[in-house]
Amino acid sequence: MSLIRIAVLATGDELLNGSIGDTNTRDIARLLGPAGYRLDTSLCVPDNPEQIARALRLLIPQQDVIIATGGLGSTGDDLTAKTVAQALGRPLVENQKAIEMIRRRYAESGRELDPVVLRQALLPQKSVPLPNKEGSAPGFWLRQQGCDLFFLPGVPAEMRAMLTNAVIPALQRNKPGSAPLLKRDYGFFGLSEPQIESRIPYADLPQAVQVGFSLDYPLVRISLQAETEDAENLLDTAEALLVEQLGDYLVARGDESMAEHVGQLLRRSGISLSLAESCTGGLISQMLTSTPGASDFLTRGAVTYADSAKIDWLGVEPEIIATYGAVSAECALAMARGMRAASAADLSLAVTGIAGPGGGSDEKPVGTVFLALAAENVNQVRGYQFNGDRQKVQQMSACMALEWLRRFAIESLS
Amino acid sequence: MSLIRIAVLATGDELLNGSIGDTNTRDIARLLGPAGYRLDTSLCVPDNPEQIARALRLLIPQQDVIIATGGLGSTGDDLTAKTVAQALGRPLVENQKAIEMIRRRYAESGRELDPVVLRQALLPQKSVPLPNKEGSAPGFWLRQQGCDLFFLPGVPAEMRAMLTNAVIPALQRNKPGSAPLLKRDYGFFGLSEPQIESRIPYADLPQAVQVGFSLDYPLVRISLQAETEDAENLLDTAEALLVEQLGDYLVARGDESMAEHVGQLLRRSGISLSLAESCTGGLISQMLTSTPGASDFLTRGAVTYADSAKIDWLGVEPEIIATYGAVSAECALAMARGMRAASAADLSLAVTGIAGPGGGSDEKPVGTVFLALAAENVNQVRGYQFNGDRQKVQQMSACMALEWLRRFAIESLS
Repeated sequence: MSLIRIAVLATGDELLNGSIGDTNTRDIARLLGPAGYRLDTSLCVPDNPEQIARALRLLIPQQDVIIATGGLGSTGDDLTAKTVAQALGRPLVENQKAIEMIRRRYAESGRELDPVVLRQALLPQKSVPLPNKEGSAPGFWLRQQGCDLFFLPGVPAEMRAMLTNAVIPALQRNKPGSAPLLKRDYGFFGLSEPQIESRIPYADLPQAVQVGFSLDYPLVRISLQAETEDAENLLDTAEALLVEQLGDYLVARGDESMAEHVGQLLRRSGISLSLAESCTGGLISQMLTSTPGASDFLTRGAVTYADSAKIDWLGVEPEIIATYGAVSAECALAMARGMRAASAADLSLAVTGIAGPGGGSDEKPVGTVFLALAAENVNQVRGYQFNGDRQKVQQMSACMALEWLRRFAIESLS
Repeated sequence: MSLIRIAVLATGDELLNGSIGDTNTRDIARLLGPAGYRLDTSLCVPDNPEQIARALRLLIPQQDVIIATGGLGSTGDDLTAKTVAQALGRPLVENQKAIEMIRRRYAESGRELDPVVLRQALLPQKSVPLPNKEGSAPGFWLRQQGCDLFFLPGVPAEMRAMLTNAVIPALQRNKPGSAPLLKRDYGFFGLSEPQIESRIPYADLPQAVQVGFSLDYPLVRISLQAETEDAENLLDTAEALLVEQLGDYLVARGDESMAEHVGQLLRRSGISLSLAESCTGGLISQMLTSTPGASDFLTRGAVTYADSAKIDWLGVEPEIIATYGAVSAECALAMARGMRAASAADLSLAVTGIAGPGGGSDEKPVGTVFLALAAENVNQVRGYQFNGDRQKVQQMSACMALEWLRRFAIESLS
């Protein structure tokens, strides 16, 4: 099987005037790879008939497939169908199947059909309409000089659904792909990128497996990638080697966030948790509760900005705050212990620190953060000095807190 | 002044294999617009000499300026300089100015210079090196067939600094731009896109002002844009008209988030606030505290997942939960009132609901959310039915809560 050359043509003024970045190219590549297709090139042009026509004339002789996004709606600047019809010398005709698709979609959702919407069914002659399960405008598919052209909506969710449900199956019937491009992603916390690189057993990895790095602060993300018929097996082998060397620092797999990963471990361990947050302002709680099922282990959280909250709810003695300050190892530990007493949870974690930009001093500069953990026969506390702006200090503090929870859950599971 | 045609050429396998999306095109457009330059087109190709050469040969006769990003480092796949030299038929020569730039940068940072890094000073003949203040690899500039080609790093921060410090000044000397493209952004909450569109006084807006829409769930973002010499004045006029019609729903300006905007209002109003969150799991608190200065108004927050937390900390009577359920108007109001009593804040807000995917019933489906607000002589509560998945229900609940806080702060300021 030879490699199918595929180009993305993204249309939209908003992609070139700084309003938004193009995320569709990345999404298309991610969905095409496992099906055996690669992107050869990607081109962005404004909603301008002349430029769209020029781009099509350029790409059609070069490419086997063009996936165009944007300009399918029924407003004034949605003019892809008309432009394509003109550029390819085909009349624009009312497509009966497209009309049915639009009518059906409106009937299903119980909305009234504005006749203006039916403009979306005017397609270049000999087009095959593609159903849109997420929106009203159908896509369309046509063939010109042996090149298959697919026109999809620009809205990312609509585009992805149509690519998966209509474009990839059509491609597989008409222009079978080559070996799948498989990719697995892993997130690591607690080692720098050079530290991780030095531990990757490159010499032992299957030759066809490529290693890629990216930063997703404060995590380091690694991808393993293979494009052979036995890619799945090769990745299994490579993953086992990676986990052997770096498993201790592995805090996320695939698209998983660190909080999702830690939440799963906590749920499996059956531990109940309560959180006392000061400088993170609810971030740890928010990260854990953005995933379903957090109520299985998280019983409560407190955002104790004011000293009175630390005293009332967590039973921190005013003398501790007066003597050591609210940002201190002593206060962090008192918060964790007090939270555990108040909530009767198995495990309580507390964070107090100076996220900045204000509030720092010579002795306790911005980025000074204390974490504490209380459980049966366990009282841990540690100070950190994190770098960066407010967001970075909060992110790093929250991830370090998640790391403490992860290690506790793993230990209790073993 | 005629419009200068400018293309972006982004090179990098990672842009076409799904690893990352191209954000440089958007950033370049944002920086060029106010300087009087627009993007005509943007092209992504892999790190492949043949494809880079083909792209250059295609773009040079069409464009006045090409801004290329990526491939400037000293690793194996950073081959832009070599490829460009070959494609344009120029020898690759050691550029003395580039060597000096690299040496100076290493000397300033006190690091030792690995001779491999000096490969970055091999540039196509007659190139002008461009200093890189954020990294080691210099960029370069050359002219071919009247087209100015700028080669910048792919790393976004390095690219932006070089564009601002070197490329735009060079362009302004050599190919003066047209009128500046100025853009202002506004975020609205509480009206749908069609509702907002119907209230925009299009007929009264200065003709040269364009209105653009985008969705930033659950906000609707509007941009006003003008590209004339008096763009600043025209935008002032248009903004005044927009605010007159829609000011009530305006919750963010520029890059500001809704939480930042509401936080500013709360700070100005001098109100102290406490929060009791159930289904939002700390999201409202996290949103407000991600901006500096939240401690000026937020005294404390509670994430009361377990009923016991609602009872202990907020003084919700167990009978209320037993009779009406934890997700009820009665419980929401008791939470807000209890929180106000516990915290002695001027204003307390409570949220309880079912974010899903589990926990829904016929009577109270997923998306059922109650908000309550307690202040002196104020007890408000209201139920909502929000659509979408867990993230959407949480986002919408949090933004509606911020909206309540916004209205309260505005009233107290007036």
